[in-house]
Amino acid sequence: MDITHVTHVKNVYPTKDGASVTIIDQTLLPLETKYIELESAEAMYEAIKLLRVRGAPAIGICAGFCMAALARQMTTDGEAFVADFERAADYLNSSRPTAVNLSWALKRMCALARSTADKPREERIAALDREAQAIQDEDIEMCRKISEYGLSLIKDGDGILTHCNAGPLATSRYGTALGPLFLGREKGMNFRVFSDETRPLLQGARLTSYELHNAGIDVTLICDNMASIVMKNGWVDACFVGCDRIAANGDAANKIGTSGVAILAKHYGIPFYVLGPTSTIDMSCPTGDRIEIELREPEEIAEKFYAQRMAPKGVKCYNPAFDVTDHSLISGIVTEHGVLRPPFDVALKKLFD
Amino acid sequence: MDITHVTHVKNVYPTKDGASVTIIDQTLLPLETKYIELESAEAMYEAIKLLRVRGAPAIGICAGFCMAALARQMTTDGEAFVADFERAADYLNSSRPTAVNLSWALKRMCALARSTADKPREERIAALDREAQAIQDEDIEMCRKISEYGLSLIKDGDGILTHCNAGPLATSRYGTALGPLFLGREKGMNFRVFSDETRPLLQGARLTSYELHNAGIDVTLICDNMASIVMKNGWVDACFVGCDRIAANGDAANKIGTSGVAILAKHYGIPFYVLGPTSTIDMSCPTGDRIEIELREPEEIAEKFYAQRMAPKGVKCYNPAFDVTDHSLISGIVTEHGVLRPPFDVALKKLFD
Repeated sequence: MDITHVTHVKNVYPTKDGASVTIIDQTLLPLETKYIELESAEAMYEAIKLLRVRGAPAIGICAGFCMAALARQMTTDGEAFVADFERAADYLNSSRPTAVNLSWALKRMCALARSTADKPREERIAALDREAQAIQDEDIEMCRKISEYGLSLIKDGDGILTHCNAGPLATSRYGTALGPLFLGREKGMNFRVFSDETRPLLQGARLTSYELHNAGIDVTLICDNMASIVMKNGWVDACFVGCDRIAANGDAANKIGTSGVAILAKHYGIPFYVLGPTSTIDMSCPTGDRIEIELREPEEIAEKFYAQRMAPKGVKCYNPAFDVTDHSLISGIVTEHGVLRPPFDVALKKLFD
Repeated sequence: MDITHVTHVKNVYPTKDGASVTIIDQTLLPLETKYIELESAEAMYEAIKLLRVRGAPAIGICAGFCMAALARQMTTDGEAFVADFERAADYLNSSRPTAVNLSWALKRMCALARSTADKPREERIAALDREAQAIQDEDIEMCRKISEYGLSLIKDGDGILTHCNAGPLATSRYGTALGPLFLGREKGMNFRVFSDETRPLLQGARLTSYELHNAGIDVTLICDNMASIVMKNGWVDACFVGCDRIAANGDAANKIGTSGVAILAKHYGIPFYVLGPTSTIDMSCPTGDRIEIELREPEEIAEKFYAQRMAPKGVKCYNPAFDVTDHSLISGIVTEHGVLRPPFDVALKKLFD
């Protein structure tokens, strides 16, 4: 087997024997790759709040390592230790109160802190280290499974179009939508990837093209409105996108613009795949119509990132953060349990039964 | 009839009794509306070269008024005058050598200069003034006819989506794709317009939303990738776009991203109209496959307009300036002679016979 050396960006990892956490400062990407070391609770809080670490799974992983590091600074034991630990966890949780993975990871670490509070300090810290590492390892394993199932859908030399960013920086090692490309590259396969820049926040330009370019994967950055000509040119064999929430009928909410890519793919006869963990599937949500779309500030369109404002003052901007891709446009939903095929309402029900 | 006051941006007009030409400096839009007066041949040359005046018809109109103004600075008569006039025309023509409307307008002015070279100076200058004004008046009339035919396709209160810019700044008074909106507004109609920002050069943000906002037309700026959700929301009754070149089968080349809008419109069952003068129809070009697509610099995607580079150094960018919308996606082609309906090969042949 032809193994290719692939540089995996390490976005979060413990340093100083677990007493600190090192992260890549994502706010400086793509021009500067700078690692920063988090030692104090305040630095950890700030890193999450200011999006130095971003992506739901990555935030959870970071929080795990942070709590293990902070446990070393606590001199208490028993109930007093649990109180100190929970106070620190609450503090970190308040950095991004709506981040589900953050509170999930913190709760998991708190549960372990409680169950080991009466053990010797050394033993307790070792257990917390293992738990933090387990959170990361489980994410790597889940991403690897999604990647393997995704990889089964494409072949060496294929052209892949992706939108927004669902890669290693937001998760661990492989990512979800980008996972098959990294895993395939490890196995010596070559893909030609087209990355939509993904306005207005440019995750495709700043993050996806950075991650792929760094790993030696052939990536071409395009504006979102160029997806049509790239598909018409015959350069795209499949589309891979991530997802924020999947309804019980297979409708998938993802970054704004995803539904447009799916419509183009259908027009040109190109398969369109949604990749993500089963935790994004919400069986209590019957269809995508029930998914509320976050509206964001007009300044993101008119001003953000530009040297000066690019639209006349006072003009209205409509800035939805997500859109819903109708299940009829999706060729397959790829989770860590395999590739689901239409009809998705049946396939999803079967998966959860 | 309910007549609404509409502010039409005057982009090019003669000043000082024809001795100078005043233009809106389009390089400063949309933040600053500044008019500059062109008196010398050098200032005129620079204004065209630096895109202070842009849009094929507007450049031609500007060149006409410029030549009439420059004729006043010439002290010669007869053959010597013709030589002076042609020298000045050659100089202006060299500012943008590939601009067809520029050389067309200059040739037209030169022909009049020759035919009036032996007439009294006053009479000759009056004739040149009239010719320059005729070039503008004919464009206004053509835009008005396109606007009237376009307006017949929509009704008061409709939502219209447009891509890129084919408005008054690039032409005169009405524009082509935006013409029906200005004309309808004059007649007291109200539309809700969605303007794609049109990456990478942002003509939709910088020009279209400026023109519409200025005229009191309800306009909402969106990123290109938001067209799908806007259509899905039921907010769009028709799409109006301009065109750079139309093939004999109805395939239409226009700003990059236009074909994607057409595919979305078809998916959502929304009519998609292409508006432009018959001069953009190239009957010698059988299909859109024969239209060469200009590829532009990667920096336009990765750097232009931004405060700093937005993609990793060294990443490839694919940057086509245009794409071709297949005739099967077009509901109607609107010219100054009326609305053509499919099959376009038959309708276009009939128009030119």
